[in-house]
Amino acid sequence: MDQNVEARLKELGWMLPASPKPIAAYVPAVRTGNLLWISGQLPLCDGKLLATGPVGSAVSLEQAQRAAAQCAVNALAIVHAECAGDWSRLQRIVRLGVFVQCGAGYGEQPKVANGASELLVQVLGDVGRHARAAVGVNALPLNATVELEMVVELA
Amino acid sequence: MDQNVEARLKELGWMLPASPKPIAAYVPAVRTGNLLWISGQLPLCDGKLLATGPVGSAVSLEQAQRAAAQCAVNALAIVHAECAGDWSRLQRIVRLGVFVQCGAGYGEQPKVANGASELLVQVLGDVGRHARAAVGVNALPLNATVELEMVVELA
Amino acid sequence: MDQNVEARLKELGWMLPASPKPIAAYVPAVRTGNLLWISGQLPLCDGKLLATGPVGSAVSLEQAQRAAAQCAVNALAIVHAECAGDWSRLQRIVRLGVFVQCGAGYGEQPKVANGASELLVQVLGDVGRHARAAVGVNALPLNATVELEMVVELA
Repeated sequence: MDQNVEARLKELGWMLPASPKPIAAYVPAVRTGNLLWISGQLPLCDGKLLATGPVGSAVSLEQAQRAAAQCAVNALAIVHAECAGDWSRLQRIVRLGVFVQCGAGYGEQPKVANGASELLVQVLGDVGRHARAAVGVNALPLNATVELEMVVELA
Repeated sequence: MDQNVEARLKELGWMLPASPKPIAAYVPAVRTGNLLWISGQLPLCDGKLLATGPVGSAVSLEQAQRAAAQCAVNALAIVHAECAGDWSRLQRIVRLGVFVQCGAGYGEQPKVANGASELLVQVLGDVGRHARAAVGVNALPLNATVELEMVVELA
Repeated sequence: MDQNVEARLKELGWMLPASPKPIAAYVPAVRTGNLLWISGQLPLCDGKLLATGPVGSAVSLEQAQRAAAQCAVNALAIVHAECAGDWSRLQRIVRLGVFVQCGAGYGEQPKVANGASELLVQVLGDVGRHARAAVGVNALPLNATVELEMVVELA
């Protein structure tokens, strides 16, 4: 990875925030060996949630995809802080866990999660290609529509 | 592990499929160090889901167990591809995450997940013994009854 | 970590149980490299669940927090067994996954999960500071209110 991650994010209409703070008694990320384990991120932007309530009723698929992308951007902000701004230390996005608030029987969680997955590949290229589990849930913190956790490999 | 994994699967009535493709913008698995992180698998067999809808109403426990086993078989197909067919490189199944679609208050997720866990031990012996988290959810991709993700250790 | 973990737990009103047994076909924990992956723990104490049903209706926030703390204590019992009682081998609590049974739209999962997170920091100090994902679900094994899984780093 070169240093152009912020530039690519900006081209796509995103700004890297300050590393988000957890809303409870834990830390944004823990490093063990080459792995950085990032806490579950909500779609917070300037202190407000981009989307609340279930996708498919209160929230459209497009809104939920954008919320998933915001979660990924917030996770990247934590990577950025951990790497002290040196993106060349990011070796690989390893795994995403994507939790999508929805009603019973809703089946488009992969499309919602693609909002995050596609952003990561657009911004990071092959380094951004990851394993992923996307599931539906009936409730999330602060009534957020999406929560995303991430494991990355650092040099 | 010797080379008889396919033979044991066949004895138990399962066939190792081609490594399944993800249904969205991510990859089937990512390797970092000795760990292989496998994306969430659905109970797809020949392109069709073995079970859809919630266990306990639309789907019986036995059907859900078989669907969980299919998810595990699909994950093994990814391990097989990653190892280029050499099962001796598989050191251990480390962790399963099993998400079971069900109604509120349903409590038999461990029995559903046993469909996967028992298959892995039958086929792989001690190498197949794993840590596990099994939970209920109200919705899964494509309305699948079960989704399973896996972390394995490779040599 | 020194050897006073049990003493600190006792001061806080908790007793380290025998390493809990899984209720299905898997093992309590798997070690790979320096990581110990601990299976999903329920709030079992002396064979009984501290809390069943959804938080916010059947169960109060305070009861759910205590249940989350019990899950963490049960996970520590597994760490204790893996370390043969030598807490100095525990380097770090890396990650918690906390699943909270609740109704649709409930948003206080972080407060529930704090029951576990705060206990770990009280007992272990900085070693107990972890990354975390807390989500809501509509159902859990045995109708438990909380399930918690954990990854820890060992020396």
